[in-house]
Amino acid sequence: MVELKGDERLDDLLAEQNMRIIQSPTVFAFSLDAVLLADFASIPLTKGKILDLCSGNGVIPLLMSRRTKAQITGVEIQERLYDMAVRNVTLNELDEQLDIVHGDLKDMPAFFGNGPFDAVTCNPPYFKTPGKREQNLNKHLTIARHEVMCTLDDVILACRKLVKPGGKVSLVHRPERMLDIVTSMRQQKIEPKRMRLVYPKPDKEANILLIEGVRNGNPGLKVLPPLYSHTASGGYTEELEEILYGRK
Amino acid sequence: MVELKGDERLDDLLAEQNMRIIQSPTVFAFSLDAVLLADFASIPLTKGKILDLCSGNGVIPLLMSRRTKAQITGVEIQERLYDMAVRNVTLNELDEQLDIVHGDLKDMPAFFGNGPFDAVTCNPPYFKTPGKREQNLNKHLTIARHEVMCTLDDVILACRKLVKPGGKVSLVHRPERMLDIVTSMRQQKIEPKRMRLVYPKPDKEANILLIEGVRNGNPGLKVLPPLYSHTASGGYTEELEEILYGRK
Repeated sequence: MVELKGDERLDDLLAEQNMRIIQSPTVFAFSLDAVLLADFASIPLTKGKILDLCSGNGVIPLLMSRRTKAQITGVEIQERLYDMAVRNVTLNELDEQLDIVHGDLKDMPAFFGNGPFDAVTCNPPYFKTPGKREQNLNKHLTIARHEVMCTLDDVILACRKLVKPGGKVSLVHRPERMLDIVTSMRQQKIEPKRMRLVYPKPDKEANILLIEGVRNGNPGLKVLPPLYSHTASGGYTEELEEILYGRK
Repeated sequence: MVELKGDERLDDLLAEQNMRIIQSPTVFAFSLDAVLLADFASIPLTKGKILDLCSGNGVIPLLMSRRTKAQITGVEIQERLYDMAVRNVTLNELDEQLDIVHGDLKDMPAFFGNGPFDAVTCNPPYFKTPGKREQNLNKHLTIARHEVMCTLDDVILACRKLVKPGGKVSLVHRPERMLDIVTSMRQQKIEPKRMRLVYPKPDKEANILLIEGVRNGNPGLKVLPPLYSHTASGGYTEELEEILYGRK
Protein backbone atom coordinates (compact mmCIF):
# COMPACT_ATOMS: atom_id res chain seq x y z
CA MET A 1 0.00 0.00 0.00
CA VAL A 2 1.03 3.57 -0.69
CA GLU A 3 0.96 5.93 2.28
CA LEU A 4 -1.29 9.03 2.42
CA LYS A 5 0.21 12.04 4.23
CA GLY A 6 -1.50 15.00 5.95
CA ASP A 7 -4.75 15.99 4.25
CA GLU A 8 -4.04 13.94 1.13
CA ARG A 9 -6.84 11.97 -0.40
CA LEU A 10 -7.13 9.31 -3.07
CA ASP A 11 -9.16 10.47 -6.07
CA ASP A 12 -10.25 8.78 -9.28
CA LEU A 13 -8.14 9.95 -12.19
CA LEU A 14 -9.75 8.07 -15.06
CA ALA A 15 -12.81 6.44 -13.62
CA GLU A 16 -13.39 3.95 -16.39
CA GLN A 17 -9.76 2.98 -16.67
CA ASN A 18 -9.17 2.41 -13.00
CA MET A 19 -6.44 5.01 -12.38
CA ARG A 20 -6.19 6.75 -9.05
CA ILE A 21 -4.21 9.72 -7.84
CA ILE A 22 -3.05 11.08 -4.52
CA GLN A 23 -3.68 14.77 -4.12
CA SER A 24 -4.37 17.42 -1.51
CA PRO A 25 -6.50 20.55 -1.68
CA THR A 26 -3.88 22.54 0.24
CA VAL A 27 -0.83 21.27 -1.65
CA PHE A 28 -1.78 20.29 -5.20
CA ALA A 29 -4.89 19.03 -6.95
CA PHE A 30 -4.91 18.49 -10.69
CA SER A 31 -6.98 20.72 -12.95
CA LEU A 32 -8.99 20.26 -16.11
CA ASP A 33 -6.09 21.99 -17.88
CA ALA A 34 -3.73 19.10 -17.12
CA VAL A 35 -6.24 16.56 -18.43
CA LEU A 36 -6.68 18.55 -21.63
CA LEU A 37 -2.94 18.87 -22.21
CA ALA A 38 -2.37 15.14 -21.72
CA ASP A 39 -5.02 14.55 -24.40
CA PHE A 40 -3.87 17.30 -26.80
CA ALA A 41 -0.11 16.72 -26.88
CA SER A 42 1.36 14.92 -29.90
CA ILE A 43 3.53 12.24 -28.35
CA PRO A 44 5.23 9.14 -29.73
CA LEU A 45 2.98 6.15 -29.07
CA THR A 46 5.19 3.07 -29.15
CA LYS A 47 8.74 4.07 -28.25
CA GLY A 48 10.82 7.16 -27.55
CA LYS A 49 11.17 9.55 -24.64
CA ILE A 50 8.70 12.09 -23.32
CA LEU A 51 9.40 14.77 -20.73
CA ASP A 52 6.83 16.59 -18.60
CA LEU A 53 7.98 19.76 -16.85
CA CYS A 54 6.22 21.30 -13.80
CA SER A 55 4.71 17.87 -13.16
CA GLY A 56 3.10 18.58 -9.79
CA ASN A 57 1.73 15.30 -8.44
CA GLY A 58 2.52 13.61 -11.76
CA VAL A 59 -0.95 13.88 -13.27
CA ILE A 60 0.18 14.48 -16.86
CA PRO A 61 2.70 11.58 -17.00
CA LEU A 62 0.05 9.32 -15.42
CA LEU A 63 -2.57 10.30 -18.00
CA MET A 64 -0.19 10.08 -20.95
CA SER A 65 0.82 6.56 -19.90
CA ARG A 66 -2.65 5.45 -21.06
CA ARG A 67 -1.91 6.65 -24.59
CA THR A 68 1.69 5.55 -25.11
CA LYS A 69 4.25 2.88 -24.39
CA ALA A 70 7.08 5.46 -24.58
CA GLN A 71 9.16 6.27 -21.50
CA ILE A 72 7.87 9.32 -19.63
CA THR A 73 9.89 11.46 -17.23
CA GLY A 74 8.31 14.07 -14.99
CA VAL A 75 10.21 16.94 -13.37
CA GLU A 76 8.96 18.70 -10.24
CA ILE A 77 10.77 21.36 -8.21
CA GLN A 78 8.72 21.11 -4.99
CA GLU A 79 9.87 18.21 -2.84
CA ARG A 80 6.41 17.73 -1.31
CA LEU A 81 4.82 17.39 -4.77
CA TYR A 82 7.69 15.29 -6.12
CA ASP A 83 7.05 12.92 -3.24
CA MET A 84 3.36 12.69 -4.15
CA ALA A 85 4.24 12.07 -7.80
CA VAL A 86 6.58 9.23 -6.89
CA ARG A 87 3.88 7.58 -4.79
CA ASN A 88 1.36 8.09 -7.61
CA VAL A 89 3.62 6.19 -10.01
CA THR A 90 3.85 3.30 -7.57
CA LEU A 91 0.14 3.41 -6.74
CA ASN A 92 -0.68 2.92 -10.43
CA GLU A 93 2.07 0.30 -10.95
CA LEU A 94 3.83 2.40 -13.55
CA ASP A 95 7.38 2.27 -12.18
CA GLU A 96 8.71 0.69 -15.37
CA GLN A 97 7.37 3.39 -17.68
CA LEU A 98 7.39 6.53 -15.53
CA ASP A 99 10.25 8.26 -13.79
CA ILE A 100 9.95 11.36 -11.60
CA VAL A 101 12.93 13.69 -11.10
CA HIS A 102 13.17 16.21 -8.27
CA GLY A 103 14.74 19.37 -9.59
CA ASP A 104 14.55 22.78 -11.22
CA LEU A 105 13.63 22.75 -14.90
CA LYS A 106 16.38 25.29 -15.52
CA ASP A 107 18.92 22.64 -14.44
CA MET A 108 17.47 19.88 -16.62
CA PRO A 109 19.48 20.61 -19.80
CA ALA A 110 22.68 20.12 -17.77
CA PHE A 111 21.19 16.99 -16.20
CA PHE A 112 19.78 15.29 -19.32
CA GLY A 113 22.02 16.81 -21.99
CA ASN A 114 20.72 18.67 -25.01
CA GLY A 115 17.73 17.42 -26.97
CA PRO A 116 17.17 13.83 -25.84
CA PHE A 117 13.34 14.04 -25.82
CA ASP A 118 10.91 13.39 -28.65
CA ALA A 119 8.24 15.47 -26.97
CA VAL A 120 8.05 17.85 -24.01
CA THR A 121 4.84 18.84 -22.23
CA CYS A 122 4.31 21.50 -19.58
CA ASN A 123 1.45 22.99 -17.60
CA PRO A 124 3.41 25.92 -16.19
CA PRO A 125 2.45 28.55 -13.60
CA TYR A 126 0.03 30.92 -15.35
CA PHE A 127 0.43 34.13 -13.43
CA LYS A 128 3.18 36.65 -12.99
CA THR A 129 4.25 37.69 -9.46
CA PRO A 130 1.53 37.07 -6.87
CA GLY A 131 -0.89 39.91 -6.20
CA LYS A 132 -2.25 40.83 -2.78
CA ARG A 133 -5.10 38.35 -2.96
CA GLU A 134 -2.74 35.49 -3.63
CA GLN A 135 -0.23 36.35 -0.90
CA ASN A 136 -2.33 34.36 1.54
CA LEU A 137 -1.95 31.16 -0.48
CA ASN A 138 0.44 28.66 0.99
CA LYS A 139 3.86 28.27 -0.60
CA HIS A 140 2.93 25.11 -2.53
CA LEU A 141 -0.01 26.68 -4.32
CA THR A 142 1.84 29.94 -4.93
CA ILE A 143 4.73 28.17 -6.66
CA ALA A 144 2.36 26.05 -8.76
CA ARG A 145 0.33 29.05 -9.92
CA HIS A 146 2.77 31.96 -10.09
CA GLU A 147 6.03 32.57 -11.86
CA VAL A 148 7.99 32.47 -8.63
CA MET A 149 10.46 29.70 -9.43
CA CYS A 150 10.39 29.99 -13.23
CA THR A 151 9.11 32.43 -15.84
CA LEU A 152 7.42 31.54 -19.09
CA ASP A 153 10.68 32.30 -20.91
CA ASP A 154 12.54 29.91 -18.57
CA VAL A 155 10.05 27.17 -19.41
CA ILE A 156 10.26 27.65 -23.17
CA LEU A 157 14.06 27.91 -23.13
CA ALA A 158 14.24 24.63 -21.20
CA CYS A 159 11.80 23.02 -23.66
CA ARG A 160 13.93 24.07 -26.61
CA LYS A 161 17.09 22.69 -25.03
CA LEU A 162 15.48 19.42 -24.02
CA VAL A 163 13.53 18.52 -27.16
CA LYS A 164 15.06 17.08 -30.32
CA PRO A 165 15.07 19.16 -33.51
CA GLY A 166 11.72 18.31 -35.09
CA GLY A 167 10.33 17.30 -31.69
CA LYS A 168 7.09 18.63 -30.23
CA VAL A 169 6.59 21.05 -27.34
CA SER A 170 3.02 21.22 -25.98
CA LEU A 171 1.77 23.68 -23.42
CA VAL A 172 -1.48 24.58 -21.71
CA HIS A 173 -1.93 28.17 -20.59
CA ARG A 174 -4.36 31.08 -20.50
CA PRO A 175 -5.43 32.70 -23.78
CA GLU A 176 -4.56 36.09 -22.26
CA ARG A 177 -0.90 35.06 -22.40
CA MET A 178 -1.02 33.76 -26.00
CA LEU A 179 1.13 36.55 -27.34
CA ASP A 180 3.81 36.11 -24.68
CA ILE A 181 3.84 32.38 -25.40
CA VAL A 182 4.09 32.53 -29.18
CA THR A 183 6.66 35.34 -29.04
CA SER A 184 8.82 33.31 -26.69
CA MET A 185 8.37 30.12 -28.73
CA ARG A 186 9.46 31.86 -31.93
CA GLN A 187 12.47 33.35 -30.16
CA GLN A 188 13.50 29.79 -29.29
CA LYS A 189 12.77 28.52 -32.82
CA ILE A 190 9.86 26.46 -31.59
CA GLU A 191 7.34 27.22 -34.34
CA PRO A 192 3.70 27.06 -33.19
CA LYS A 193 1.92 24.53 -35.43
CA ARG A 194 -1.28 23.43 -33.63
CA MET A 195 -3.58 25.43 -31.40
CA ARG A 196 -6.83 24.58 -29.73
CA LEU A 197 -8.98 26.98 -27.75
CA VAL A 198 -11.27 25.79 -25.00
CA TYR A 199 -14.41 27.78 -24.27
CA PRO A 200 -16.48 27.32 -21.11
CA LYS A 201 -19.66 27.64 -23.22
CA PRO A 202 -20.41 28.50 -26.87
CA ASP A 203 -21.12 32.20 -26.21
CA LYS A 204 -18.17 32.81 -23.88
CA GLU A 205 -14.59 33.90 -24.44
CA ALA A 206 -11.94 31.17 -24.50
CA ASN A 207 -10.44 30.39 -21.09
CA ILE A 208 -7.87 27.68 -21.87
CA LEU A 209 -5.22 27.66 -24.60
CA LEU A 210 -3.58 24.47 -25.86
CA ILE A 211 -0.60 25.09 -28.10
CA GLU A 212 2.04 22.90 -29.70
CA GLY A 213 5.19 23.88 -31.52
CA VAL A 214 7.88 22.03 -33.41
CA ARG A 215 11.55 22.77 -32.76
CA ASN A 216 12.95 24.24 -36.00
CA GLY A 217 9.52 23.81 -37.66
CA ASN A 218 8.33 25.81 -40.66
CA PRO A 219 5.70 28.53 -40.21
CA GLY A 220 2.05 27.52 -40.66
CA LEU A 221 -0.46 27.22 -37.83
CA LYS A 222 -3.55 25.01 -37.68
CA VAL A 223 -6.33 26.12 -35.33
CA LEU A 224 -8.22 22.98 -34.37
CA PRO A 225 -12.00 22.92 -33.86
CA PRO A 226 -13.08 24.64 -30.63
CA LEU A 227 -13.68 22.58 -27.51
CA TYR A 228 -16.51 23.53 -25.18
CA SER A 229 -16.09 22.37 -21.61
CA HIS A 230 -19.63 22.94 -20.35
CA THR A 231 -23.15 22.81 -21.73
CA ALA A 232 -25.60 25.68 -21.37
CA SER A 233 -27.11 23.91 -18.33
CA GLY A 234 -23.70 23.71 -16.63
CA GLY A 235 -22.67 20.05 -16.96
CA TYR A 236 -19.64 18.80 -18.87
CA THR A 237 -20.06 18.42 -22.61
CA GLU A 238 -19.97 14.95 -24.13
CA GLU A 239 -16.59 15.66 -25.75
CA LEU A 240 -15.08 16.78 -22.45
CA GLU A 241 -16.47 13.74 -20.67
CA GLU A 242 -14.82 11.51 -23.24
CA ILE A 243 -11.49 13.14 -22.46
CA LEU A 244 -12.01 13.30 -18.69
CA TYR A 245 -13.12 9.74 -18.28
CA GLY A 246 -10.63 8.27 -20.70
CA ARG A 247 -13.24 6.89 -23.08
CA LYS A 248 -11.47 8.00 -26.22
CA MET B 1 -26.93 56.74 -62.75
CA VAL B 2 -23.56 55.15 -62.13
CA GLU B 3 -21.92 53.51 -65.14
CA LEU B 4 -21.08 49.79 -65.27
CA LYS B 5 -17.88 48.93 -67.18
CA GLY B 6 -16.81 45.68 -68.90
CA ASP B 7 -18.14 42.59 -67.11
CA GLU B 8 -19.12 44.49 -63.99
CA ARG B 9 -22.43 43.68 -62.34
CA LEU B 10 -24.51 45.26 -59.62
CA ASP B 11 -24.88 42.99 -56.58
CA ASP B 12 -26.77 43.34 -53.32
CA LEU B 13 -24.42 44.19 -50.49
CA LEU B 14 -26.79 44.27 -47.55
CA ALA B 15 -30.08 43.02 -48.86
CA GLU B 16 -32.25 44.24 -46.04
CA GLN B 17 -30.59 47.63 -45.86
CA ASN B 18 -30.76 48.39 -49.55
CA MET B 19 -27.03 48.73 -50.27
CA ARG B 20 -25.67 47.72 -53.63
CA ILE B 21 -22.14 47.23 -54.93
CA ILE B 22 -20.46 47.17 -58.32
CA GLN B 23 -18.11 44.25 -58.76
CA SER B 24 -16.64 41.99 -61.36
CA PRO B 25 -15.66 38.33 -61.20
CA THR B 26 -12.51 38.99 -63.23
CA VAL B 27 -11.40 42.15 -61.40
CA PHE B 28 -12.66 42.11 -57.84
CA ALA B 29 -15.59 40.63 -55.97
CA PHE B 30 -15.91 41.00 -52.22
CA SER B 31 -15.53 38.02 -49.94
CA LEU B 32 -17.09 36.83 -46.71
CA ASP B 33 -13.83 37.91 -45.06
CA ALA B 34 -14.48 41.58 -45.83
CA VAL B 35 -18.00 41.36 -44.41
CA LEU B 36 -16.69 39.76 -41.23
CA LEU B 37 -13.97 42.38 -40.76
CA ALA B 38 -16.43 45.25 -41.23
CA ASP B 39 -18.53 43.67 -38.45
CA PHE B 40 -15.62 42.76 -36.14
CA ALA B 41 -13.58 45.98 -36.15
CA SER B 42 -13.89 48.31 -33.15
CA ILE B 43 -14.53 51.69 -34.74
CA PRO B 44 -15.70 55.03 -33.36
CA LEU B 45 -19.46 55.29 -33.89
CA THR B 46 -20.32 58.97 -33.82
CA LYS B 47 -17.26 60.99 -34.83
CA GLY B 48 -13.59 60.50 -35.65
CA LYS B 49 -11.65 59.17 -38.62
CA ILE B 50 -11.40 55.62 -39.89
CA LEU B 51 -9.01 54.34 -42.56
CA ASP B 52 -9.39 51.18 -44.62
CA LEU B 53 -6.30 49.95 -46.47
CA CYS B 54 -6.40 47.59 -49.48
CA SER B 55 -9.98 48.69 -50.01
CA GLY B 56 -10.62 46.99 -53.36
CA ASN B 57 -14.04 48.08 -54.61
CA GLY B 58 -14.69 49.83 -51.28
CA VAL B 59 -16.70 47.05 -49.69
CA ILE B 60 -15.41 47.56 -46.14
CA PRO B 61 -15.93 51.36 -46.04
CA LEU B 62 -19.42 50.82 -47.49
CA LEU B 63 -20.31 48.24 -44.86
CA MET B 64 -18.83 50.21 -41.97
CA SER B 65 -20.86 53.27 -43.00
CA ARG B 66 -23.93 51.41 -41.72
CA ARG B 67 -22.42 51.22 -38.23
CA THR B 68 -20.88 54.65 -37.79
CA LYS B 69 -21.23 58.33 -38.54
CA ALA B 70 -17.43 58.78 -38.50
CA GLN B 71 -15.56 59.79 -41.65
CA ILE B 72 -14.16 56.78 -43.52
CA THR B 73 -11.29 56.85 -46.01
CA GLY B 74 -10.44 53.91 -48.25
CA VAL B 75 -7.07 53.44 -49.96
CA GLU B 76 -6.64 51.31 -53.07
CA ILE B 77 -3.53 50.91 -55.19
CA GLN B 78 -5.15 49.50 -58.36
CA GLU B 79 -6.65 52.25 -60.49
CA ARG B 80 -9.32 49.92 -61.90
CA LEU B 81 -10.51 48.99 -58.39
CA TYR B 82 -10.19 52.56 -57.10
CA ASP B 83 -12.49 53.60 -59.93
CA MET B 84 -15.05 50.95 -58.91
CA ALA B 85 -14.83 52.08 -55.27
CA VAL B 86 -15.47 55.72 -56.22
CA ARG B 87 -18.54 54.73 -58.20
CA ASN B 88 -19.72 52.52 -55.32
CA VAL B 89 -19.59 55.50 -52.96
CA THR B 90 -21.71 57.56 -55.36
CA LEU B 91 -24.07 54.67 -56.08
CA ASN B 92 -24.87 54.42 -52.36
CA GLU B 93 -25.03 58.22 -51.89
CA LEU B 94 -22.20 58.19 -49.36
CA ASP B 95 -19.99 60.94 -50.84
CA GLU B 96 -20.21 63.04 -47.67
CA GLN B 97 -19.01 60.26 -45.35
CA LEU B 98 -16.69 58.19 -47.54
CA ASP B 99 -13.58 59.19 -49.41
CA ILE B 100 -11.49 56.91 -51.63
CA VAL B 101 -7.79 57.59 -52.25
CA HIS B 102 -5.83 56.11 -55.13
CA GLY B 103 -2.38 55.23 -53.89
CA ASP B 104 0.13 52.86 -52.34
CA LEU B 105 -0.39 52.22 -48.63
CA LYS B 106 3.35 52.64 -48.14
CA ASP B 107 3.00 56.28 -49.25
CA MET B 108 0.04 57.04 -46.99
CA PRO B 109 1.98 58.11 -43.87
CA ALA B 110 3.66 60.82 -45.99
CA PHE B 111 0.28 61.74 -47.46
CA PHE B 112 -1.84 61.82 -44.29
CA GLY B 113 0.86 62.54 -41.70
CA ASN B 114 1.50 60.37 -38.67
CA GLY B 115 -1.34 58.98 -36.61
CA PRO B 116 -4.45 60.89 -37.68
CA PHE B 117 -6.81 57.88 -37.59
CA ASP B 118 -8.81 56.50 -34.66
CA ALA B 119 -9.05 53.10 -36.30
CA VAL B 120 -7.47 51.35 -39.28
CA THR B 121 -8.89 48.26 -40.97
CA CYS B 122 -7.31 46.08 -43.64
CA ASN B 123 -8.12 42.92 -45.57
CA PRO B 124 -4.67 42.44 -47.09
CA PRO B 125 -3.42 39.97 -49.69
CA TYR B 126 -3.16 36.61 -47.90
CA PHE B 127 -0.55 34.76 -49.88
CA LYS B 128 3.14 35.16 -50.45
CA THR B 129 4.51 35.26 -54.00
CA PRO B 130 2.18 33.55 -56.49
CA GLY B 131 2.73 29.85 -57.13
CA LYS B 132 2.43 28.17 -60.50
CA ARG B 133 -1.29 27.65 -60.21
CA GLU B 134 -1.90 31.34 -59.59
CA GLN B 135 0.30 32.63 -62.39
CA ASN B 136 -2.67 32.34 -64.74
CA LEU B 137 -4.75 34.75 -62.70
CA ASN B 138 -5.11 38.18 -64.19
CA LYS B 139 -3.10 41.05 -62.72
CA HIS B 140 -6.02 42.45 -60.70
CA LEU B 141 -6.72 39.21 -58.85
CA THR B 142 -3.02 38.48 -58.36
CA ILE B 143 -2.42 41.85 -56.70
CA ALA B 144 -5.50 41.48 -54.48
CA ARG B 145 -4.52 37.99 -53.31
CA HIS B 146 -0.73 37.92 -53.28
CA GLU B 147 1.94 40.00 -51.61
CA VAL B 148 3.03 41.51 -54.90
CA MET B 149 2.59 45.20 -54.13
CA CYS B 150 2.90 44.99 -50.32
CA THR B 151 3.97 42.47 -47.72
CA LEU B 152 2.28 41.82 -44.40
CA ASP B 153 5.05 43.80 -42.70
CA ASP B 154 4.40 46.76 -45.05
CA VAL B 155 0.73 46.68 -44.09
CA ILE B 156 1.34 46.57 -40.36
CA LEU B 157 4.04 49.27 -40.51
CA ALA B 158 1.61 51.53 -42.38
CA CYS B 159 -1.13 50.78 -39.82
CA ARG B 160 1.16 51.74 -36.97
CA LYS B 161 2.15 55.01 -38.61
CA LEU B 162 -1.41 55.94 -39.53
CA VAL B 163 -3.28 55.09 -36.31
CA LYS B 164 -3.24 57.22 -33.18
CA PRO B 165 -1.57 55.91 -30.04
CA GLY B 166 -4.37 53.98 -28.33
CA GLY B 167 -6.16 53.52 -31.69
CA LYS B 168 -7.32 50.19 -33.05
CA VAL B 169 -5.91 48.19 -35.95
CA SER B 170 -8.19 45.37 -37.21
CA LEU B 171 -7.22 42.77 -39.78
CA VAL B 172 -8.73 39.72 -41.40
CA HIS B 173 -6.36 37.00 -42.56
CA ARG B 174 -5.77 33.27 -42.63
CA PRO B 175 -5.14 31.43 -39.34
CA GLU B 176 -2.05 29.86 -40.95
CA ARG B 177 -0.41 33.29 -40.89
CA MET B 178 -1.38 34.10 -37.29
CA LEU B 179 2.18 33.89 -36.05
CA ASP B 180 3.52 36.17 -38.77
CA ILE B 181 0.76 38.66 -37.99
CA VAL B 182 1.15 38.80 -34.23
CA THR B 183 4.95 38.87 -34.48
CA SER B 184 4.77 41.82 -36.87
CA MET B 185 2.14 43.60 -34.77
CA ARG B 186 4.26 43.33 -31.65
CA GLN B 187 7.31 44.59 -33.52
CA GLN B 188 5.26 47.68 -34.36
CA LYS B 189 3.94 48.02 -30.79
CA ILE B 190 0.43 47.15 -31.90
CA GLU B 191 -0.56 44.80 -29.09
CA PRO B 192 -3.11 42.13 -30.12
CA LYS B 193 -6.12 42.48 -27.79
CA ARG B 194 -9.10 40.77 -29.48
CA MET B 195 -9.16 37.70 -31.67
CA ARG B 196 -12.00 35.78 -33.23
CA LEU B 197 -11.67 32.56 -35.17
CA VAL B 198 -14.15 31.59 -37.83
CA TYR B 199 -14.74 27.89 -38.50
CA PRO B 200 -16.54 26.60 -41.58
CA LYS B 201 -18.31 24.00 -39.39
CA PRO B 202 -18.03 22.93 -35.73
CA ASP B 203 -15.73 19.98 -36.42
CA LYS B 204 -13.41 21.75 -38.86
CA GLU B 205 -10.22 23.76 -38.43
CA ALA B 206 -10.55 27.54 -38.41
CA ASN B 207 -10.25 29.15 -41.86
CA ILE B 208 -10.58 32.87 -41.10
CA LEU B 209 -8.77 34.92 -38.45
CA LEU B 210 -10.06 38.25 -37.19
CA ILE B 211 -7.57 40.13 -35.04
CA GLU B 212 -7.43 43.56 -33.49
CA GLY B 213 -4.57 45.33 -31.78
CA VAL B 214 -4.14 48.59 -29.95
CA ARG B 215 -1.20 50.86 -30.73
CA ASN B 216 0.93 50.99 -27.56
CA GLY B 217 -1.60 48.73 -25.78
CA ASN B 218 -0.79 46.56 -22.78
CA PRO B 219 -0.47 42.78 -23.20
CA GLY B 220 -3.61 40.69 -22.63
CA LEU B 221 -5.57 38.97 -25.37
CA LYS B 222 -9.27 38.10 -25.40
CA VAL B 223 -10.32 35.23 -27.67
CA LEU B 224 -13.97 35.85 -28.53
CA PRO B 225 -16.51 33.05 -28.94
CA PRO B 226 -16.01 31.05 -32.15
CA LEU B 227 -18.06 31.92 -35.20
CA TYR B 228 -19.28 29.13 -37.47
CA SER B 229 -19.98 30.16 -41.02
CA HIS B 230 -21.93 27.10 -42.18
CA THR B 231 -24.29 24.56 -40.69
CA ALA B 232 -23.75 20.82 -41.02
CA SER B 233 -26.14 20.80 -43.99
CA GLY B 234 -24.15 23.48 -45.79
CA GLY B 235 -26.21 26.66 -45.44
CA TYR B 236 -25.10 29.77 -43.60
CA THR B 237 -25.55 29.78 -39.84
CA GLU B 238 -28.05 32.15 -38.28
CA GLU B 239 -25.25 34.24 -36.77
CA LEU B 240 -23.53 34.60 -40.12
CA GLU B 241 -26.78 35.55 -41.83
CA GLU B 242 -27.30 38.28 -39.28
CA ILE B 243 -23.90 39.72 -40.17
CA LEU B 244 -24.24 39.16 -43.94
CA TYR B 245 -27.67 40.68 -44.25
CA GLY B 246 -27.05 43.55 -41.90
CA ARG B 247 -29.72 42.50 -39.41
CA LYS B 248 -27.60 43.10 -36.35
